[in-house]
Amino acid sequence: MRIVKPSGVVVEGLIMPRHSFSSPNVIVVKLDNGYNIGVSVDEGTTIEVIEERVVKAVTPPPRTVAHKGRPLVKIISTGGTIASKVEYETGAVRPALTPEELLELIPELGEIASIDAEVLFSLLSENMTPSHWTSIAEHVAKVIRSGVDGVVVPHGTDTMSYTASALAFALRNLPVTVVLVGSQRSSDRPSTDSALNIVGAVLAASRLPIGEVTVCMHSTPSDNELLVHRGVKVRKMHSSRRDAFQSINDLPIARIDPVNRRIEILNKRYIPRSRSPDDMIVQPRFDDRVVLLKAYPGFQAEIIDYLVDKGFHGIVLEGTGLGHIGVYAHKAIERAIESGVAVVMTTQTLFGRVNMNVYTTGRELLRMGVIPGEDMLPEVAYVKLSWVLAQTRDLKEVRLMMLRNFVNEINPVHTPDLYPTWHR
Amino acid sequence: MRIVKPSGVVVEGLIMPRHSFSSPNVIVVKLDNGYNIGVSVDEGTTIEVIEERVVKAVTPPPRTVAHKGRPLVKIISTGGTIASKVEYETGAVRPALTPEELLELIPELGEIASIDAEVLFSLLSENMTPSHWTSIAEHVAKVIRSGVDGVVVPHGTDTMSYTASALAFALRNLPVTVVLVGSQRSSDRPSTDSALNIVGAVLAASRLPIGEVTVCMHSTPSDNELLVHRGVKVRKMHSSRRDAFQSINDLPIARIDPVNRRIEILNKRYIPRSRSPDDMIVQPRFDDRVVLLKAYPGFQAEIIDYLVDKGFHGIVLEGTGLGHIGVYAHKAIERAIESGVAVVMTTQTLFGRVNMNVYTTGRELLRMGVIPGEDMLPEVAYVKLSWVLAQTRDLKEVRLMMLRNFVNEINPVHTPDLYPTWHR
Repeated sequence: MRIVKPSGVVVEGLIMPRHSFSSPNVIVVKLDNGYNIGVSVDEGTTIEVIEERVVKAVTPPPRTVAHKGRPLVKIISTGGTIASKVEYETGAVRPALTPEELLELIPELGEIASIDAEVLFSLLSENMTPSHWTSIAEHVAKVIRSGVDGVVVPHGTDTMSYTASALAFALRNLPVTVVLVGSQRSSDRPSTDSALNIVGAVLAASRLPIGEVTVCMHSTPSDNELLVHRGVKVRKMHSSRRDAFQSINDLPIARIDPVNRRIEILNKRYIPRSRSPDDMIVQPRFDDRVVLLKAYPGFQAEIIDYLVDKGFHGIVLEGTGLGHIGVYAHKAIERAIESGVAVVMTTQTLFGRVNMNVYTTGRELLRMGVIPGEDMLPEVAYVKLSWVLAQTRDLKEVRLMMLRNFVNEINPVHTPDLYPTWHR
Repeated sequence: MRIVKPSGVVVEGLIMPRHSFSSPNVIVVKLDNGYNIGVSVDEGTTIEVIEERVVKAVTPPPRTVAHKGRPLVKIISTGGTIASKVEYETGAVRPALTPEELLELIPELGEIASIDAEVLFSLLSENMTPSHWTSIAEHVAKVIRSGVDGVVVPHGTDTMSYTASALAFALRNLPVTVVLVGSQRSSDRPSTDSALNIVGAVLAASRLPIGEVTVCMHSTPSDNELLVHRGVKVRKMHSSRRDAFQSINDLPIARIDPVNRRIEILNKRYIPRSRSPDDMIVQPRFDDRVVLLKAYPGFQAEIIDYLVDKGFHGIVLEGTGLGHIGVYAHKAIERAIESGVAVVMTTQTLFGRVNMNVYTTGRELLRMGVIPGEDMLPEVAYVKLSWVLAQTRDLKEVRLMMLRNFVNEINPVHTPDLYPTWHR
């Protein structure tokens, strides 16, 4: 498509589907560099069709590609950018790239494993809720019981680490590796990381000896190395880079060379695969009356009072430093705990551990019954508290469960190399 | 002090002051390694005094140490670990290390500059509020008008970056460099970083050509290098490491070798010192009806409804990815904006920029009037919105001011080297 404006400005690119909220006189054009721009079509603007989109007639491949002797990997798609290719081809706004298309696009998947694929959801991951975690956990459990060698879950990247944590708590003693995978660039862009990430995820799911929920993504901006991160110790640390996902307070579990199909274990502290699906523990419920609140100077303690009055069950505080919040919020926190609300303290520094014994503010919070979140990321503590409160509301039991290390969500020893190298 | 328990266990160390919430039968002892432990004093326990604390008779040094020809640096202490030494010596619970003692402890300060010092607050920084920002800003402005060559503000590290941002917006066209400085280890521990950080801060304040508010802290765990960070682009990224403070989405401004007293500018994009205190713009007010809310799967939109009903003025969302929040919260956000509440979107990835044009969720939020926070840290956007709303409540003006780059809080160009090197 070539658009010539009265001013003489010329724009060339792929014309994009219109949305319900598009301005009536604006055409959205995808440029060669992959970005979309809006072009206003005023009087005198001419539009030329340079090339018509050719919709290829494709014979759909079989839903299962079985190869004798190869491990069976089930791909359960939940949506996200990694599944967004069709959007630009069909004009639909929120579709999924079907697993059949995945197999067609990435034939080498069939060389690594027998692939079985299905679509569970087609959700942008920012729209995931704890009830979706439950559905995914139940479905993955069913698939594992049916007998597979690994599970890959394509997922939007925005909340992928939250879902990974949720699955990690919901599904324990796993007989297989569960690998969440996403893409930071949509599949219609030349810089897409979809294919490589999926190849790596299938490699990890079919070969890793571990029985944990993991996340497989690019380790660097280039296309030669992936990392497998522990689901309860990973975080999206950049809004757009391909190497956005990084392990925090823990080593990544494995490095993957997807081109040469090599896997190297980097972290020997992992839970091995259990011997059978019968060993699996499935506890897929989450309490949706839990909030994650960040502390900041001037934090309004009345928000905590409101949550208590409304009958919320748990609050994870993202405190400052070693696990602090201003004394002006202490009375509200004490009242929350006295009312039976579980309060957990984490730190907004993300790196490091809370230690509430060092300063008076922290000791006072401990005395009130605030549960220290150790070195858990605020997001992981939020998922864990939601999971714990779905099992018990007894604050003593909640405390014991929050302090218990279920799936390596707490790393007892931090070595200096866990902290990244910053600009120096 | 030596404590011998009936079991034969012997503990030696410095006996610590009692707190109001100390258990009646427990003595807190500071061990040689710097950590405190509690020892229960049961029947049969003996306590011996090994050595009595000798309180040295010190002649108080003069409040101002003037050196002809050297720049005049004013140290305005606000509290925090860097000022917590006296706690263990006098038994007071939250005292300040007075600047006089600083001069006594670090005589080389007098070689770098003429030092004038005073205590404004003695606050643990988690207890700072926007009204303290106002007090500090007004006091720093007064000091600058009185004629100094640099200002150093010792501050607790927990919320130091919030205060740095607040001062940056409140005090513009600065004729001097303002340097906030803290300590990650208290001055009574052998590993303290206090002295080196203060030497670096005085070097920066007396010599840097820039008219910005900065933070000076260790760049590595070793004692040979400090970094000066832009106050609106720095964040505490570790709960306990000395190199906890790091620039996010920007290069640090300068590297300091405090031993050899050398300064190297790393970032040429800075605001130079203005020509005179008369050029200074002082706008020290902050609106305390602003909240910082994190988005997470299952985020309860009723919290936004509550804030609107209670008459809050502004909400900074710490969204996911490129600046998203679940569609289940969109109605509440639209109602907030229609009610005159300013809503700003930032990202919990911290690194990178929001771009709400890429996905439908983001475009829908833009249509409603959500203000994109560019690459501002959520904490900086919170401080900025509090500052903007103290000047105008007109949403159009608020939008213009939030998008205006006042003190380099927005970095228009991100080079790949701004992202740290993670484990590979």
